[in-house]
Order: sequence, then C-alpha cells, then structure tokens
Amino acid sequence: MAKPNLQVALDHSSLADALGDIYKIGDVVDIIEVGTILCLQAGQEAIRCLRALYPNQIVIADTKCADAGGTVAKNCAQAGANWMTCICSATLATIQAAAKEIEEIQIELYGQWTVEQAQKWRDIGIKQVIYHQSRDALLAGETWGEKDLKRLKELTDMGFNVSVTGGLTVQTLSLFREIPVYTFIAGRGITASVDPRSAAIEFQDEITRIWGDGVD
Amino acid sequence: MAKPNLQVALDHSSLADALGDIYKIGDVVDIIEVGTILCLQAGQEAIRCLRALYPNQIVIADTKCADAGGTVAKNCAQAGANWMTCICSATLATIQAAAKEIEEIQIELYGQWTVEQAQKWRDIGIKQVIYHQSRDALLAGETWGEKDLKRLKELTDMGFNVSVTGGLTVQTLSLFREIPVYTFIAGRGITASVDPRSAAIEFQDEITRIWGDGVD
Repeated sequence: MAKPNLQVALDHSSLADALGDIYKIGDVVDIIEVGTILCLQAGQEAIRCLRALYPNQIVIADTKCADAGGTVAKNCAQAGANWMTCICSATLATIQAAAKEIEEIQIELYGQWTVEQAQKWRDIGIKQVIYHQSRDALLAGETWGEKDLKRLKELTDMGFNVSVTGGLTVQTLSLFREIPVYTFIAGRGITASVDPRSAAIEFQDEITRIWGDGVD
Repeated sequence: MAKPNLQVALDHSSLADALGDIYKIGDVVDIIEVGTILCLQAGQEAIRCLRALYPNQIVIADTKCADAGGTVAKNCAQAGANWMTCICSATLATIQAAAKEIEEIQIELYGQWTVEQAQKWRDIGIKQVIYHQSRDALLAGETWGEKDLKRLKELTDMGFNVSVTGGLTVQTLSLFREIPVYTFIAGRGITASVDPRSAAIEFQDEITRIWGDGVD
C-alpha cells in the first residue's frame, strides 16, 4: 500500500495563531488544511497567507461547501487553494459546479449518506472523500470502531482516495493498517500538543512504520 | 397569519460590495444575512461590519456549520451575529453545541432530510429551519412546486419558524399564500437588480398585500 499522507488541520480562531503553529511543522506535514473555523474567521486571507508561506505544498480550504459551489470554488482557487471540501448533503449540481473551478473536490461525509450517493460522486469524476468522526461526536464519547473500518473499506473499494479524520492519535493509526488510507488528518492532536513539531514527526514515523516509506 | 419578514442575503465575494449594497436597503429589510460566500471571503470582519452599521437589526451568519458547532457559534456571537445556520446533515451533538453559544440556530435543509430528523431538532429546542431551493438546482432548471409547499406545511405544522429561499421574486411570493412563512430570503433578486432599494420595497409591499401588515 502507498504511504498515507499526513495533513494538518489548522482549526484556529485566529490567523496569527494558525501561522504560529504551522511555522513549527509546515515542512513535516504533506498537506496543509485551512480548517472551517479558520475559513470563517479569517476568510480568504487565511488561504492566501498559507499559499504564500508554502508555495509547493497542497493547501486545502475546508469550506464544507453546501451551495453556490462554483463561486466558492472559484474564490478558493483564486486565493491559492488546490483542493476544497463539499459537504455530502450538497446537491450533485453544487458539487459539479465546484469541481469545474478548482483542481479537486473532497466530499466530507457527515451524518447520513449512502453508497448510492457515493457512486454518483464517482460517476461525475470525484476522486476524494473524507471520512469523519465529528468533533462533537467525539466529545459525546463516540470513537473509532469496526463499523467505521467497514465503511472505509467500502469507499476505498469504490476507488476513492479516502482521508480519515477525527480524534486521531499516534496510537490509533494502527487501527487502520488493513485500509489503503490516502491521508490522515490531525488537528489539535498536533497543534495543541506541548511540542507540535515532535508530534508531527511521531505521526509521520508511525505512518512509515505501518505502511512503509512508499518506495518499492 | 403574521406578516413574514424580509431578509436580504449578502452573498458577495467582496465585503466592500456587500456594504455598498446593504447601505441602499438596510432600513427596508427586516433581517440581514452574511451569506456563506461572504463569510468565507471576509471572515468574521463581515459580521462585525454589519453589526456596527445595523446595531438594532437581526444579523445572521450563514455559516452552514457542519462541525465544531460550539466554536463556530461562539465566534459568530462574539462578532455580533444574533443567529447562525447549521447544515441539516450536522450531528445533533454539533447542533446542540452551537445552540448553547448563540441566540438561535437555524437548520438549513439541503439534500436528504426526514421528518424524524426534524422532530429531533424540535426536541432539543431548535425553532427555525430554512427551506431551500439550492442556487445550483435553480440553475439546473428546478423551481418551486407542490412538493415544496407540502413539505413547508409539514414544517410549519411541527411548530418551526420556516424561512424560505432560492430564486424568489416578487411574482413568486403569492405561491406561498396558504403557508405561515416566517421569513422570505432574497439575495441577488434584490442586490443585483437595477434599483435594489425599489426591489426591496416591492418585496415588502407584496408581502404586506398578501399577509397583511401584522396589525390585528
């Protein structure tokens, strides 16, 4: 299996705080996400700053777009984002409109969604989905389990590049060892740790230990 | 039936453009919405500017929040928003977390949702929903019909204050005459018209003509 990417989600309420944290770990992670909270707080300036600081990395705008896909995607692309997220409850028309304006769309799987829907996303050319444990669900005591792994397998079998997120720690990564995960997304698990740089390196080391270094 | 409110959605990609438009109509409309596009472009500064200009009006942040409800709602309230939207696919935990931090939450009905879900929102104290024709669905040729009116009636019968949006014109308002609509939301139907102020006044006049002036 290919080595999964490590993505850091910058879910800060302040752009300055986000920049302070990414500066410590930007060269360790593979993908930088402008989290929804930061998008809503700092607007497209957050995307612009991260694009300026990291011209060669993938920058994702986690807009969870539900409507006006064309305009939102165009704005994100203009600000420098490579990819953007749409919520799974968005209409196909919204997702298609967004997909025309930016390199790739990732579908965020929240709440109810079905394999039939997922197949429709594949049929219109969507390659990526994000499988979530919601932050609020985690706070309410839910955690990763067999049910999640089964659904993840379904999605990778359909040909999706699947990103996984929600309460991930270095210790939980091995739960996913049988799944060709495309990207692990960590937020406060890295940025809120005592030593964010060491935390990011530990994630990368554990990913390499389990999945190899991607070199055949 | 009570007179429905008129809400203008500022779905501009530039804060300056939004402020230029609201200045023409701010005193005519009942509710001012910081649209999703504007939230994502200008961040919380958009909410702050509108709160500063219209200290006595209801300001809504159309975040379509899908996760981290507590943080997003707290940030919106701090910036001066009265109400905030959550997407219907958000978990109950997310909606509850958001509801604790801001005056009221409005649930945006996009894609698949059920009456059972809606009852759960009522059960946790949510009073408002927004019934949508998505912009992209409208662009794809869909329009208001019997199916929509039937679902609207279900929602008002459940006790929700229902806002209605998506491609509304002065001419379409009478379609809803049998429904106790709480708020009509217009965006470009007002802001992109040749004379936004006249357009807003025409909406208000037609609402008064159909539903009365709210005085018994």
